[in-house]
Amino acid sequence: MAVIEPRVLKGFRDFLPPAEIERRDLIERIEASFRSYGFVPIDTPALEYAEILLGKGGGETEKQIYRFKDHGGRDVALRFDLTVPFARFLAEHRGELTLPFKRYHIAKVWRGENAQRGRYREFTQCDFDIIGSDTAAADFEILLMMRNTLAGAGILAGGAGGVTIKLNHRGLFNRFLEVQGIGGRSAAILRTVDKLAKTGAGEVLKLLAELTGPEKAREVLDFIRPRNSFEETLEAMIGAAGGESPGAERLKLLRRFMKDTGTEASFVLDPSITRGLDYYTGVVFETFLDKLPEIGSVCSGGRYDDLAGLYSREKLSGVGASIGLDRLIAALESLGAAEARSSYAPLAVACLREEDGGLYQALAARFRMADIPCEVFPDPRKLTQQFMLAEKKGARWMVIPGTSGGAAAPDAPGIEGGLTLRNLSRRENRENLPVQEIINIIKNESSR
Amino acid sequence: MAVIEPRVLKGFRDFLPPAEIERRDLIERIEASFRSYGFVPIDTPALEYAEILLGKGGGETEKQIYRFKDHGGRDVALRFDLTVPFARFLAEHRGELTLPFKRYHIAKVWRGENAQRGRYREFTQCDFDIIGSDTAAADFEILLMMRNTLAGAGILAGGAGGVTIKLNHRGLFNRFLEVQGIGGRSAAILRTVDKLAKTGAGEVLKLLAELTGPEKAREVLDFIRPRNSFEETLEAMIGAAGGESPGAERLKLLRRFMKDTGTEASFVLDPSITRGLDYYTGVVFETFLDKLPEIGSVCSGGRYDDLAGLYSREKLSGVGASIGLDRLIAALESLGAAEARSSYAPLAVACLREEDGGLYQALAARFRMADIPCEVFPDPRKLTQQFMLAEKKGARWMVIPGTSGGAAAPDAPGIEGGLTLRNLSRRENRENLPVQEIINIIKNESSR
Repeated sequence: MAVIEPRVLKGFRDFLPPAEIERRDLIERIEASFRSYGFVPIDTPALEYAEILLGKGGGETEKQIYRFKDHGGRDVALRFDLTVPFARFLAEHRGELTLPFKRYHIAKVWRGENAQRGRYREFTQCDFDIIGSDTAAADFEILLMMRNTLAGAGILAGGAGGVTIKLNHRGLFNRFLEVQGIGGRSAAILRTVDKLAKTGAGEVLKLLAELTGPEKAREVLDFIRPRNSFEETLEAMIGAAGGESPGAERLKLLRRFMKDTGTEASFVLDPSITRGLDYYTGVVFETFLDKLPEIGSVCSGGRYDDLAGLYSREKLSGVGASIGLDRLIAALESLGAAEARSSYAPLAVACLREEDGGLYQALAARFRMADIPCEVFPDPRKLTQQFMLAEKKGARWMVIPGTSGGAAAPDAPGIEGGLTLRNLSRRENRENLPVQEIINIIKNESSR
Repeated sequence: MAVIEPRVLKGFRDFLPPAEIERRDLIERIEASFRSYGFVPIDTPALEYAEILLGKGGGETEKQIYRFKDHGGRDVALRFDLTVPFARFLAEHRGELTLPFKRYHIAKVWRGENAQRGRYREFTQCDFDIIGSDTAAADFEILLMMRNTLAGAGILAGGAGGVTIKLNHRGLFNRFLEVQGIGGRSAAILRTVDKLAKTGAGEVLKLLAELTGPEKAREVLDFIRPRNSFEETLEAMIGAAGGESPGAERLKLLRRFMKDTGTEASFVLDPSITRGLDYYTGVVFETFLDKLPEIGSVCSGGRYDDLAGLYSREKLSGVGASIGLDRLIAALESLGAAEARSSYAPLAVACLREEDGGLYQALAARFRMADIPCEVFPDPRKLTQQFMLAEKKGARWMVIPGTSGGAAAPDAPGIEGGLTLRNLSRRENRENLPVQEIINIIKNESSR
């Protein structure tokens, strides 16, 4: 019979153990950080009514979404982000939630876009939001979590450098546009400014000029120029936006919070940060790795005042951000900061006699109880072959049961002869060890 | 503007925080168990070529699978289990894997089947397999993991009882059918016997009689009757299957391993266990909760000798099992053994003054560093209201900063006045506590 060629779809990936362990390590650290702030997880279906996911519809989304008819003829689609399902979730479960609601959602999304240039059609998003509190404290908590999850004791700890979070305030930007008399074109102007990092000032000036005329375009370009410090930039923005305003007050309070937590060095006020998306109404922010700024923002977000408007008449305001997991992993790898391991088990038990399989498991249970993951080899092959296999699978030690001439280890009943511990990389054996001593050796060396 | 009604598709579910936390707690415990045996995770795409997922095609699968044309006109489908993608994965990555390969995969699958009677169209599977070792040791490791992950120190610990794993051997069953001269109908007979628990002996006898005639049907029914003990059943099976055989040897060795690990009480040899699926060739097994056997098997599997045959000419043998997560959660809930909690954070910091948001975060950082997840409330509401909210969100304690008349806590700089710790359920306050004492109180009470 002809075999079917085993292959995955373009833009999709298998994760072999080393890559999957790396991804899980990262997700587990992100989750631990989110949980430490009192955030709780939710999940939503991968498949939803297309009407719900597309909302007002149109544009890029419609072209990229995986959409089809299900068995009942329903018009359904795979989620393409976690924001739209969250908006639907909020509208549907409003009565069951206690505000302020702090949730995170880490899950896969699908976009059938052009899979060239290393873009994936299936990737993991990692969103966190605070709903129902329009306060500087809520804005700041998201900013602080972005910083601390990545830098500080977070994912980048250990030589991969810090992060710089660039923030801006949409309200302040819009006041400036009103003062200039070009507030009516706000959405188009913000989207144009958003391209600054990619296309450069010259191109942005040209595009702005088409929208506002050359004189106003130069005013906008001057407005988005960062000054020497957070404070100076804020002063310049306030001046250009016609004086004090709620947005300026919000930024001042955020600056105070940064100082009160000793985190002010991580934050830059940058009026050129606008975010492309329409729903943001307050602060907006992007996060750059200090050692690798050129890869772009690894965590972005902002404040919105009506997330669930498509599905509910109740206004739900909030602030949130999203970590780009795939980009972050690529960055950690190129910084040499990714932990590469192919196994969770530092220890393997060799198989000498087929009929002793039960005794090997009883022995392994002792290590597992001591929180040392332990693999048991099932095949009685040559020991040299088993050493090689164990090393290849990522183990650092191998226990060889019943080979040394001595008496059985007192705490490993049934096995004839003592236990030998082999350090696989050093090719060193220590014979006749009790189980407890093996545990101590492994724990000591692992904690170094 | 009219709003779109927020709703999910029939058979699909949102997971609100209490349900999602419960699901994650369970998955995390299962994963920790798998990892302790040296198993490593993989992941595969949700979407694959329909040709690959359907293989030879036909039958129930074809009716249930979500299948459609993607943007490039490819015939694609959502995975309906984790076994078929794993077979494809093995064939595709054979050269990159070290055998024996021990992997687990916990992920969602989709089946557009009739969603009546509480069946879901999106659910989580939890598979674990050992590939490339046709040994009793590999069979036994899967059996032991099933038992220990669920019972022992596992998921059922704390009064939810133990598990009974019923096993059988397909090879032995087939030898018996050969002896009876009805080996040619093996697949149909095994599928019929598989219905015993559901339909009862009378119905099975009737269906068997249609396949084999009434006399042979009675022989089959006698063969699948368990005797008084593992050993007696095995003797009867060997006798009926024409004497000793590799399958009988395998079962004897497995029994020895059970005794050597002191786990024999958890295992029953039951020749009526056949599993419906065609690819099993050796041991097969099902797992029942002792306190809730009527819900059916919560973990099933077996040995196969050519899993990836559709995609590769190389034979890959293995043994594996799958935990039915949704069924297990339902069981834990009805046994009252599910941990119900709506938050990871036992502690919340109250908000008294909007402008102190940074100081509250600096204070919360102290608790987080001591491994106490801590939520910070962003809105300066009435304290009684904040107590109520904190309790509703699942916190047990609330820190009220700067209310008691005393001096600021020495380790909480900036906050004017001492810290008060409120036990929310007891409605008790303790005033003027240093941060470290609050940490001690929470840690002591949590470990009780």
